[in-house]
Amino acid sequence: MRPSGRSQDTMREVRIEMDYTKHAKGSVLISVGDTRVLCTCSVEDKVPPFLNHTNQGWITAEYGMLPAATHSRSAREAARGKQTGRTVEIQRLIGRSLRSIVNPSLLGTRTFLIDCDVIQADGGTRTASITGGFLALCSAIVKLMDKKLLPVSPLLDCVAATSVGMINGAACLDLDYREDSRAEVDMNLVMTGAGRYVEIQGTGEKGAFGEEQLQEMKQLGQVGIRRLIEIQRSILEARGELEHLFPRPPQ
Amino acid sequence: MRPSGRSQDTMREVRIEMDYTKHAKGSVLISVGDTRVLCTCSVEDKVPPFLNHTNQGWITAEYGMLPAATHSRSAREAARGKQTGRTVEIQRLIGRSLRSIVNPSLLGTRTFLIDCDVIQADGGTRTASITGGFLALCSAIVKLMDKKLLPVSPLLDCVAATSVGMINGAACLDLDYREDSRAEVDMNLVMTGAGRYVEIQGTGEKGAFGEEQLQEMKQLGQVGIRRLIEIQRSILEARGELEHLFPRPPQ
Amino acid sequence: MRPSGRSQDTMREVRIEMDYTKHAKGSVLISVGDTRVLCTCSVEDKVPPFLNHTNQGWITAEYGMLPAATHSRSAREAARGKQTGRTVEIQRLIGRSLRSIVNPSLLGTRTFLIDCDVIQADGGTRTASITGGFLALCSAIVKLMDKKLLPVSPLLDCVAATSVGMINGAACLDLDYREDSRAEVDMNLVMTGAGRYVEIQGTGEKGAFGEEQLQEMKQLGQVGIRRLIEIQRSILEARGELEHLFPRPPQ
Amino acid sequence: MRPSGRSQDTMREVRIEMDYTKHAKGSVLISVGDTRVLCTCSVEDKVPPFLNHTNQGWITAEYGMLPAATHSRSAREAARGKQTGRTVEIQRLIGRSLRSIVNPSLLGTRTFLIDCDVIQADGGTRTASITGGFLALCSAIVKLMDKKLLPVSPLLDCVAATSVGMINGAACLDLDYREDSRAEVDMNLVMTGAGRYVEIQGTGEKGAFGEEQLQEMKQLGQVGIRRLIEIQRSILEARGELEHLFPRPPQ
Amino acid sequence: MRPSGRSQDTMREVRIEMDYTKHAKGSVLISVGDTRVLCTCSVEDKVPPFLNHTNQGWITAEYGMLPAATHSRSAREAARGKQTGRTVEIQRLIGRSLRSIVNPSLLGTRTFLIDCDVIQADGGTRTASITGGFLALCSAIVKLMDKKLLPVSPLLDCVAATSVGMINGAACLDLDYREDSRAEVDMNLVMTGAGRYVEIQGTGEKGAFGEEQLQEMKQLGQVGIRRLIEIQRSILEARGELEHLFPRPPQ
Amino acid sequence: MRPSGRSQDTMREVRIEMDYTKHAKGSVLISVGDTRVLCTCSVEDKVPPFLNHTNQGWITAEYGMLPAATHSRSAREAARGKQTGRTVEIQRLIGRSLRSIVNPSLLGTRTFLIDCDVIQADGGTRTASITGGFLALCSAIVKLMDKKLLPVSPLLDCVAATSVGMINGAACLDLDYREDSRAEVDMNLVMTGAGRYVEIQGTGEKGAFGEEQLQEMKQLGQVGIRRLIEIQRSILEARGELEHLFPRPPQ
Repeated sequence: MRPSGRSQDTMREVRIEMDYTKHAKGSVLISVGDTRVLCTCSVEDKVPPFLNHTNQGWITAEYGMLPAATHSRSAREAARGKQTGRTVEIQRLIGRSLRSIVNPSLLGTRTFLIDCDVIQADGGTRTASITGGFLALCSAIVKLMDKKLLPVSPLLDCVAATSVGMINGAACLDLDYREDSRAEVDMNLVMTGAGRYVEIQGTGEKGAFGEEQLQEMKQLGQVGIRRLIEIQRSILEARGELEHLFPRPPQ
Repeated sequence: MRPSGRSQDTMREVRIEMDYTKHAKGSVLISVGDTRVLCTCSVEDKVPPFLNHTNQGWITAEYGMLPAATHSRSAREAARGKQTGRTVEIQRLIGRSLRSIVNPSLLGTRTFLIDCDVIQADGGTRTASITGGFLALCSAIVKLMDKKLLPVSPLLDCVAATSVGMINGAACLDLDYREDSRAEVDMNLVMTGAGRYVEIQGTGEKGAFGEEQLQEMKQLGQVGIRRLIEIQRSILEARGELEHLFPRPPQ
Repeated sequence: MRPSGRSQDTMREVRIEMDYTKHAKGSVLISVGDTRVLCTCSVEDKVPPFLNHTNQGWITAEYGMLPAATHSRSAREAARGKQTGRTVEIQRLIGRSLRSIVNPSLLGTRTFLIDCDVIQADGGTRTASITGGFLALCSAIVKLMDKKLLPVSPLLDCVAATSVGMINGAACLDLDYREDSRAEVDMNLVMTGAGRYVEIQGTGEKGAFGEEQLQEMKQLGQVGIRRLIEIQRSILEARGELEHLFPRPPQ
Repeated sequence: MRPSGRSQDTMREVRIEMDYTKHAKGSVLISVGDTRVLCTCSVEDKVPPFLNHTNQGWITAEYGMLPAATHSRSAREAARGKQTGRTVEIQRLIGRSLRSIVNPSLLGTRTFLIDCDVIQADGGTRTASITGGFLALCSAIVKLMDKKLLPVSPLLDCVAATSVGMINGAACLDLDYREDSRAEVDMNLVMTGAGRYVEIQGTGEKGAFGEEQLQEMKQLGQVGIRRLIEIQRSILEARGELEHLFPRPPQ
Repeated sequence: MRPSGRSQDTMREVRIEMDYTKHAKGSVLISVGDTRVLCTCSVEDKVPPFLNHTNQGWITAEYGMLPAATHSRSAREAARGKQTGRTVEIQRLIGRSLRSIVNPSLLGTRTFLIDCDVIQADGGTRTASITGGFLALCSAIVKLMDKKLLPVSPLLDCVAATSVGMINGAACLDLDYREDSRAEVDMNLVMTGAGRYVEIQGTGEKGAFGEEQLQEMKQLGQVGIRRLIEIQRSILEARGELEHLFPRPPQ
Repeated sequence: MRPSGRSQDTMREVRIEMDYTKHAKGSVLISVGDTRVLCTCSVEDKVPPFLNHTNQGWITAEYGMLPAATHSRSAREAARGKQTGRTVEIQRLIGRSLRSIVNPSLLGTRTFLIDCDVIQADGGTRTASITGGFLALCSAIVKLMDKKLLPVSPLLDCVAATSVGMINGAACLDLDYREDSRAEVDMNLVMTGAGRYVEIQGTGEKGAFGEEQLQEMKQLGQVGIRRLIEIQRSILEARGELEHLFPRPPQ
């Protein structure tokens, strides 16, 4: 029924490779089907001017696509001399999402900079960036805690994201590129481990949509988010970092 | 209870001045409380390259704020040499919203460019831009129909937008600047006259939010949208343009 | 005789709305015929680097046109990523003109930033910006004096500007767009209340012009300036600010 | 009396070296005292879009200063990534001035691009650019006429420019840098061989100026212009080009 | 002796993963020690303007580093709005190197765009880009030949690159980052399978160097290049593409 | 045999005019045949951030071409808003070359900025910039020593540069533009007075080149460099500056 042949509530295979590169404090290669995003977390000992003298830290994100990551090559933003509106919109979303699950007062006077670079794109790069970026942030926090630079974990919960869409009138979970370009409605959900919303963005790409469709998509998205959070937790657990990061069970 | 003293479901006064300037095909000054946005619609006889040879038209938007429109003066984007991420995000939203209620095959090979320039900002500039931009688009369409340049109206429905937020745990309609900066959750709703969603964007500005809050905000937003659509319709009716634009009753 | 039907020495109607917006220290909407410019004055407690340690203040201006302000829409400078040469030339002229009638040593260590944004253009936007910008500056100075932030008025005189041109060999005062685009010679005059020159710029748009024409245009321009200064004074007087700003009668 | 020791109506020595470089159609090194500007004229067989299908040609100018041309090195505009407002203002003035003495219908479908690059700056670079740029334009026109690419000379007259200023209350001709930075009033005059005005720009740098001063400066400037035009003519005559360019005696 | 502990003529381990991503015509992940570069080859059916009407194709390259690829994070060029001088210099070198081993008349009217994106940097990113970029180009050519879009192989030879440097007076092959930053002399060699030079760049980073050192470095570099060419050939052979690409044995 | 008619080892005439302009600390107009470059040295009392607190000075270079310097006019980089890759590559080479012959610890906390502006281009502008830039640097150093701002000369040796190329299989010294555009191989050599290499860059412009050609070109280049260094020394000697700058005989 779906172009991908998957059933409505089937996500693509998620693979996560921790410590993919060595220089950044955290580095995660996340693959969701054919979408592959390298998420790294670098840490700087300063904060943006508006946080000076507040004792709060900051989390921000930058997003990019390698030119050959897309079906037909897209222009290199560095060569064009500016980032597209889409890029700016996405990196703002990633930053907001990751800030939502930390206590900024516990970050120290630091900026955690999440770089999300798309190696290969097949739909859902922004949601993969959030899901992978969370793990890169975790890695960096663990390193700082190990070095006693952070006394306690600033994390309040996990966070993950997925997309849902209406295709031929049916709600479908985790759209790939071909599905995304045909979807009537496109929704991105960012949610916490506790099942609370961080961001809900639903857009009628081909006309408007009704209340019933909204409910259907939301529920399907929640199914996806729960699976992603499970994957995140099992990775952190396997590395022995889950309890370290969430001394109290994550909500 | 609210900083503004309004009750939870009270919108600010909406004033609309049609034909505010004379050069653009459509020109609307919309005021929502102290927020004032000049929305104009200019028409060009060409379409972006990706629509060449499709017989479809295009609607796009640009957004700007006069430097002195904000509480403390903000830098002039033209002088800085680039638009902020916020500006780009907003103008993409306005364009998407207005495209959702037209049949692009009926626009002719034309681009309708909606300029939304904020004269004075007090919260809700993007939603006012959508609500006012729709009327500017209507004006331009009427002018083209009068000149027989458009044989039938390309409009499918009205569209309007408002914001809702959680303040001290209570859902509040149509936030002003002071309220917006204190809100725990911020939601923008874009909906059609038929009560269907074009865009729903909910963001936890201070942590995540639950299902119940989402429902509460949605319902409050729908109340606001309905009032705005009524205002739009009554203006179009008073100008004798409503039936012209929607020969069949808008859905 | 003139395209506008006005006699040679007739200016367009001048309307001035003080306190048009609320955030800036001074805010004036000036209309000269169909030309409408919003002039605001914002105040910052710092000066450009070259004035550091001089105990002098600074006045500067920025100028912009809303894209739909012109007969056919002009590109948004913020989107193009730079200001045109025309914009830069005009904002330098406005800044120079307003600096000419203040004592910089009495401004305090402050920058008065005059924003002139053209809402609707029909010729003479730069001269309207100077005439209106002066009143925005006055408003800001009055506010600072009321708050005891300025002990005495830094103003030395009023300043206003108008245009003159040769059309079909006849000198005409205050050209509108249609006239301006046909004029053989275009002259802008900036003068003080005392009838002294701040700036005189005459340009042969279609070949050169002779001494006699220069004299004729100058005299006509002086007629216009005197009327504008009268309007400025009567507005300040009606607001009870004239004596405050010019404790000694303005020269 | 003057900082330079010159009498009020004494210009600096003017030296002109024709054919200074070999690639451009016209190339002139003009020195006015220590100010040295290389003016070249390149010719392209196309016109700006707004002249398409008009059978008219165009003359435009670009201006630049070598970084080390000024007393203290100024930043390289190419490295800063943009031209200053001053640069843009000057190149617009040069273009306007040179367009004023040609018949555009006789230029062919061509753009004459005048590059004025300041090798050494000591005041009056914009006026030297106009005076020298005219000769570079003449050289290019002669070359095109020699090749039968232009049937008749498009020139209507000569054009030259100089500066005048008020220093310590006395009108002085042709200010050098030290004088310019002290002048109370600064005036640039662009005039034709027939003694007609192309451009008159007077600016009160330190307050306003009166009618009498304006007259004094104008007369002094005219003295300077007449000498510059004589120099231009004698150079063209010595090269045997004067009659070629002005078959009827220049007006 | 060397900081890396390697002997003077020992290269780091080279690993090559062909078809690393799926959208580009060619895609190669090359690792030289800890340096990892993703090289892709995209093909466009057009050539730069200067090749119009020549029946020749073009090969060009773009180079970038992921921000977190370096020891301490480097600024994202897309966000800064321009490419650094180093980036531009490197991508010009890669393009020149790859153009040197093709017959441009056999490329068709096409541009082969090689993107080299550094995933992790540890010295030698530009030489790895050339060595890997050649294989990406081979992949793309094979694909075009398979589709009969290229009748014969345009390749003349293989090309590879390595670095050599003087460290504490000793010539060392294939510097890593730590070695590179201490080297007295830094040399990059680009050579063909036939042992001919495409590019030789030697730079005295800490003073000049003598003839003897030049010879020593050259010989060491040739050793490295030969090994890299062997690796390239064995990969192409294993894929059954070597004879296809070089029907006559590569020179 | 050569397009220029010169024998293989004949350089073009080199003329050097010291103190060509007056504002910079050093100013040299170097002509190599028809190539003319103005090299100036300005001195600033600060260093780039990465040298703060090191007691070392810095030498850097900027390069530009006047638009009309080339055979057909090239676009003004300041107007395009950015420097080309070629410009950036050249100015990096000039800076590296001049840094190679100074002891940075003896420069004081200063930046010596070498501006190389091409007045007329006929091949070899980058090598002329290095040869001339060295003399501009010398001039500036002498001035600082004369003012006792530098206690001892920071110079270690002279430095000069030339180009060599293979044309029709023959190595030729000092290519002009016509030769350069036909050369099979292009090599730039930067060498010190002691005959040591600072930079060697050989590029196969039309395919690769062999060892024998490399040797031939190197030897020819060395001949050229020796002549240039002689010219530099005789100029410095004639000005009585040679011993001042090199109290011990330059190596």
